[in-house]
Amino acid sequence: MSSAIVFQAAQAIPFMARVRSHQPLIHCITNQVVQNFTANILLAIGASPAMVIAQEEVCSFVTVADGLLINIGTVYQQSADSMLMAAQQAMLSQKPWVLDPVAVGKALPFRTRIAHELLSFCPQVIRANAAEVLTLAGEQARAKGTDSQDSTQSALGAALRLAEQYQTIVAVTGEKDYITDGKTVYVVTGGDQKLTKVTGTGCSLSAMVAALIAGADDQLLATASACFMMKKAGELAQRQSGMGTFAVSLLDQLSLMGSINTEGH
Amino acid sequence: MSSAIVFQAAQAIPFMARVRSHQPLIHCITNQVVQNFTANILLAIGASPAMVIAQEEVCSFVTVADGLLINIGTVYQQSADSMLMAAQQAMLSQKPWVLDPVAVGKALPFRTRIAHELLSFCPQVIRANAAEVLTLAGEQARAKGTDSQDSTQSALGAALRLAEQYQTIVAVTGEKDYITDGKTVYVVTGGDQKLTKVTGTGCSLSAMVAALIAGADDQLLATASACFMMKKAGELAQRQSGMGTFAVSLLDQLSLMGSINTEGH
Amino acid sequence: MSSAIVFQAAQAIPFMARVRSHQPLIHCITNQVVQNFTANILLAIGASPAMVIAQEEVCSFVTVADGLLINIGTVYQQSADSMLMAAQQAMLSQKPWVLDPVAVGKALPFRTRIAHELLSFCPQVIRANAAEVLTLAGEQARAKGTDSQDSTQSALGAALRLAEQYQTIVAVTGEKDYITDGKTVYVVTGGDQKLTKVTGTGCSLSAMVAALIAGADDQLLATASACFMMKKAGELAQRQSGMGTFAVSLLDQLSLMGSINTEGH
Repeated sequence: MSSAIVFQAAQAIPFMARVRSHQPLIHCITNQVVQNFTANILLAIGASPAMVIAQEEVCSFVTVADGLLINIGTVYQQSADSMLMAAQQAMLSQKPWVLDPVAVGKALPFRTRIAHELLSFCPQVIRANAAEVLTLAGEQARAKGTDSQDSTQSALGAALRLAEQYQTIVAVTGEKDYITDGKTVYVVTGGDQKLTKVTGTGCSLSAMVAALIAGADDQLLATASACFMMKKAGELAQRQSGMGTFAVSLLDQLSLMGSINTEGH
Repeated sequence: MSSAIVFQAAQAIPFMARVRSHQPLIHCITNQVVQNFTANILLAIGASPAMVIAQEEVCSFVTVADGLLINIGTVYQQSADSMLMAAQQAMLSQKPWVLDPVAVGKALPFRTRIAHELLSFCPQVIRANAAEVLTLAGEQARAKGTDSQDSTQSALGAALRLAEQYQTIVAVTGEKDYITDGKTVYVVTGGDQKLTKVTGTGCSLSAMVAALIAGADDQLLATASACFMMKKAGELAQRQSGMGTFAVSLLDQLSLMGSINTEGH
Repeated sequence: MSSAIVFQAAQAIPFMARVRSHQPLIHCITNQVVQNFTANILLAIGASPAMVIAQEEVCSFVTVADGLLINIGTVYQQSADSMLMAAQQAMLSQKPWVLDPVAVGKALPFRTRIAHELLSFCPQVIRANAAEVLTLAGEQARAKGTDSQDSTQSALGAALRLAEQYQTIVAVTGEKDYITDGKTVYVVTGGDQKLTKVTGTGCSLSAMVAALIAGADDQLLATASACFMMKKAGELAQRQSGMGTFAVSLLDQLSLMGSINTEGH
């Protein structure tokens, strides 16, 4: 197993700048809890979100979008059908897409089966917590609802195997984020534990990944850049006033971060 | 084509005051991304929002509500059925209703067809961006996801024709807002570009229109008043701290604006 | 009718501390408007929210969760089926669950029937406004959309009868909150009228009840504690800057409240 390369802040700058300048249109089929937060985070970093979910519409919209996010947090049969159609179309149209396999695991076999079906349509990136990565790699995992009780370090081996098996990038995020294509591994440290106390930070990170990889030349570094941005925003956000202010400040920091880094362009 | 009359701040006051005093019950069938924001904006200006979506419920609820908003942002077949039933009932019960035809255009023929069906039930107001107005008027439009790439000025002719054809008010909003009944045209200027970087400002504006026209004697001025309120709140909102704070401050300003203007009543 | 016992702040402390230390997993099947706010409020008080809605998933998830919330705010036939399955499973698995019968009443017979079906699966707590309690008890009620126009005091008799009939706890909340198991009645006073101007404070209170009763030895006091927390947070929240800031500050206060009270543990 390759040793992890520490991701450097400066590496994120060109990817952040590219989102600002190109404003990629990101098609999101995501869960009901985080749609507003996800859209606002994509807008904050300079991308253009669009939530299109009807089976009659997803395929045609994938072809005009620059990237696709599929998040199965509140999946049910009908939305699963839309997701599968969209993922297949993304593969056929060679549009980069990100899978966020929320809460896959033995307590929820329905979505675990759907996640495996989605995997067959070749996502560019799987962004998941440790328990979800372990589950998709066919290993034992410990989770509580949507939260992993395994460390990302303990899931790194599974992440590498998953990346190799599906020829994809796996970003396993938690206290430390590991981002790998099965060969190279980047590690992103920092962040703040409060990030786990705002709903949708993981889901929105997956959307940010979709925005950063759209049209990027190095998708592994683009994915790591998204992880870095979220961790950095968590560090910079106002942490003294409580969780409401923290969530608002997180959005502030993501929007300022992009502006600062692209100001010179 | 009539030349546009510049809307004056003072003209909004009686309509804002009426919402505060009458607290109209606004039935919203809107998209999944903006439901929370829309409800909070309606509450902020003094209206009473209610999201009722089941086919079993929409018709009876339209008859008790003071106004109806239909927004097709995340429409799918089942929700389309609810929307069509509600719109027809609104027409039959003579309840004012607003259509927000999010993202109609050649990339999304499914919703474009639904929007045309909805138009047959006589909305009092269509609130849309330039590309959406051009599409509904049968003209060429340029859009990127939910954003127009045409100016409102270039869509004014289409807005006038659409208003005449459907005997309705068209509010085409963007850098400048034009509000017309096919004869008179009001223009609302000001606002702030940051309004385009918070998801749901357009959708919530449509909801505000529904609240302001409910029971108003002059629906054209009521519609322009809603446009003015959103632009003014965008100007007054705190713009230095980033997009999270801006969105919160927008709600603050809308709630304070109403209070100030109705304090003397 | 028993006279109401005034709830004392100190009585809430052990229940709040228990949520912090046990982080109960709360399965929420709630309305589309408040999902994000509800999740963030549960996280703020230390609980772990999970929104799982598919008919294929709700039963298995109820068995791993510590408690269940069912809120019928935007119910439709398919989600009603999920709710009924989840409620039945909760009864069979002896998992505590809370019913929030949003907007039941004569204007909306579909959801009123569903609420009555849900009642047959023995919720531990019904958290509702006065009009909803009166409706469920078979009495006349006055409501405007989701808001009651009856006082909680006028619904106390109905709350007592409802609690007795279904062997449940009824929390009828409004200007004063009454919490009763049909014998003892607690009253919680205080709060702030601004709580009625943020969408989802009632819905989120119901979720907090689910978190506080999970594993609690005294479910009546646990329910009253949740009511107290929301009222107190409403008093402590910043009320000068407008409704956006108030909502953010409400989350702040709930997150700080928990921390303070459990710091010594």
